[in-house]
Amino acid sequence: MVGAKKTYNFCSGPAMLPEDVLLKAQAELLNYQNQGDSVMALSHRSDAFLEILAQAQQRLAALLDLPDHYRILFMQGGASAQFSAVPLNLRQNNLPIGFLDSGYWSQKALEEAQKYAEVDVIASSQSSGYLKAIEQADYQLSKPLSYLHYTPNETIDGNAFYCIPNNQLPNGQEVPLVADMSSCILSEPIDVSRFGVIYAGAQKNIGPAGLAIVIVREDLLARSQQNQQAMPRLLNYATVVEQNSMANTPPTFAIYMANLVFQWLQQQGGLEVIQQRNQAKAELLYQAIDSSRLFVNNVEKNHRSKMNVPFSSQNAELDAKFAEQAQQQGLISLQGHRSKGGLRASIYNAMPYQGVEALVQFMKSFENQYV
Amino acid sequence: MVGAKKTYNFCSGPAMLPEDVLLKAQAELLNYQNQGDSVMALSHRSDAFLEILAQAQQRLAALLDLPDHYRILFMQGGASAQFSAVPLNLRQNNLPIGFLDSGYWSQKALEEAQKYAEVDVIASSQSSGYLKAIEQADYQLSKPLSYLHYTPNETIDGNAFYCIPNNQLPNGQEVPLVADMSSCILSEPIDVSRFGVIYAGAQKNIGPAGLAIVIVREDLLARSQQNQQAMPRLLNYATVVEQNSMANTPPTFAIYMANLVFQWLQQQGGLEVIQQRNQAKAELLYQAIDSSRLFVNNVEKNHRSKMNVPFSSQNAELDAKFAEQAQQQGLISLQGHRSKGGLRASIYNAMPYQGVEALVQFMKSFENQYV
Repeated sequence: MVGAKKTYNFCSGPAMLPEDVLLKAQAELLNYQNQGDSVMALSHRSDAFLEILAQAQQRLAALLDLPDHYRILFMQGGASAQFSAVPLNLRQNNLPIGFLDSGYWSQKALEEAQKYAEVDVIASSQSSGYLKAIEQADYQLSKPLSYLHYTPNETIDGNAFYCIPNNQLPNGQEVPLVADMSSCILSEPIDVSRFGVIYAGAQKNIGPAGLAIVIVREDLLARSQQNQQAMPRLLNYATVVEQNSMANTPPTFAIYMANLVFQWLQQQGGLEVIQQRNQAKAELLYQAIDSSRLFVNNVEKNHRSKMNVPFSSQNAELDAKFAEQAQQQGLISLQGHRSKGGLRASIYNAMPYQGVEALVQFMKSFENQYV
Repeated sequence: MVGAKKTYNFCSGPAMLPEDVLLKAQAELLNYQNQGDSVMALSHRSDAFLEILAQAQQRLAALLDLPDHYRILFMQGGASAQFSAVPLNLRQNNLPIGFLDSGYWSQKALEEAQKYAEVDVIASSQSSGYLKAIEQADYQLSKPLSYLHYTPNETIDGNAFYCIPNNQLPNGQEVPLVADMSSCILSEPIDVSRFGVIYAGAQKNIGPAGLAIVIVREDLLARSQQNQQAMPRLLNYATVVEQNSMANTPPTFAIYMANLVFQWLQQQGGLEVIQQRNQAKAELLYQAIDSSRLFVNNVEKNHRSKMNVPFSSQNAELDAKFAEQAQQQGLISLQGHRSKGGLRASIYNAMPYQGVEALVQFMKSFENQYV
């Protein structure tokens, strides 16, 4: 359907990349900008790669309107490595780590953090079956914490926070707020100044798997230095900052791809434009589900994710048939996560509106056939 | 000089990849084997990617003639992440970790291990300026160790071990032998059965940066389980084995590239053939250096690396001029490591004999011009 690719890919990650980005990567795969070899084979200390790294940092900073006192780190291991890195860097004075638990990935982050510090679940939407995120009214911070962690968009459960959670103690002090933005980063503008640390695996809205982006408020690097002896060198934010994301050989090709994606985002008009497109895609899909006689999505309407839309006919066999027939039509990877079943459409930045239209059209024809 | 690439790339890593591999990756970059999208955008749980992963494991096992009681792990973070992972997994009963120190990377591994256990330098060639590796006669193990670590090929110092070091205690017991094979893996056949753990960053003889290969003797996984609570989940070998290298989203594109490189190695005739080619390339280059009136390599002849050949005119200005003029001739990345200066030619598997011939020819013409 789409030029050389012929498909719309709804995978939750590794996810669809903009076709223009893939075409550019393909064209220069054997000879990057007349350097005489593939970008994969260039020294990470070559001028050519250092320019890519600097561009990637500058473009990401521009896209996010990054305040001066934040640093961008390119790391390896995706968000899962950050489940270890965040507590190892930020734990402080034996204070507990606070968690807002809104789903599968909140739980994963919490389980790993428990190895390194006491964990305090400040609020959880588990009793709702994670059909919603956490509301401001659900909790009040009452005591100091090393930091407060949350997952603004739950990739599997399909819920999302629609405002930045309250991180103030009764005395007015703020606890550093940490967000796993793997599946929503760059999908809309954010106020970075509200956060202590933002991290994201690349394989959804940024580039190929194997890269993580970490944004750290500078004052928190002092904690990394204090905790230095108790963590692997490559996880230490202060070391990574000091070495300009080259504390070891960085995943150069993944950073190159991320830089192309950032350039593409700027060419689209930046995050306000992207947000409008994402809003329109999500509205189209949720409308189709809500008006369907076959498919349902039970997430509370004001907590629905604009990136990951789980839906189901509530009949496992029919769901499997849907995913299979859709695949044959070029609508790929619509099966739900193995922990949950059902169906799921991930509609990140690179998914065009036409892809969602094609999905909605197929849902209707499938419904007409089976209801 | 070489088809579309026009250069020979002597970078120590990220390093040159076989041109056939890059051409194949380029051809299918937007649509992997009719799957409808780039291999970068396919789910890591798709049949297509699981097939790539299985092929990569099978091909690597075949190339290395891997005994049945060893497991292959694909991990992130390159060899530097293994500097943390190895001690975190293998430390045992407060026993010290033994190190054979033969250069820059031995030291790096040792520095990181010190965070987690007592370290015992069993032998060091530091006093020689690392102009040799360690000989059997240099040491005798006298007491139990968690394991004995060494670096068979020192990428920066340009020295190499030409036999597997002795890991026997006086009572005949063997200490697990651990080797950082980043810059020599797959360059020649090895007897895997002599090792407890072999690890290697991918960006020299395997594929793009951002991937590490770890080969673990199965019985050692019990140590990983014992040490589980004290290390990041993604570094735990037992967890990675249990999850078939998908404890988190793996670097799918890097694994895909590694699989293509393994296939290429098999097509070349396997590691015996590769070893002969590497031997011939190294002989040609060392002969040129030793017969030169300008360039020297001071590494002891029986400890010279076949992969990384440092050389120098012993005049920093002239070395810089050489690297610059060579680059203009399509012989790229010949400058030495920033810690050491001088020049260095890395001649991994993907470097054709013609590349070394071109280098030797350029060395002669440069010498005629400047001596």
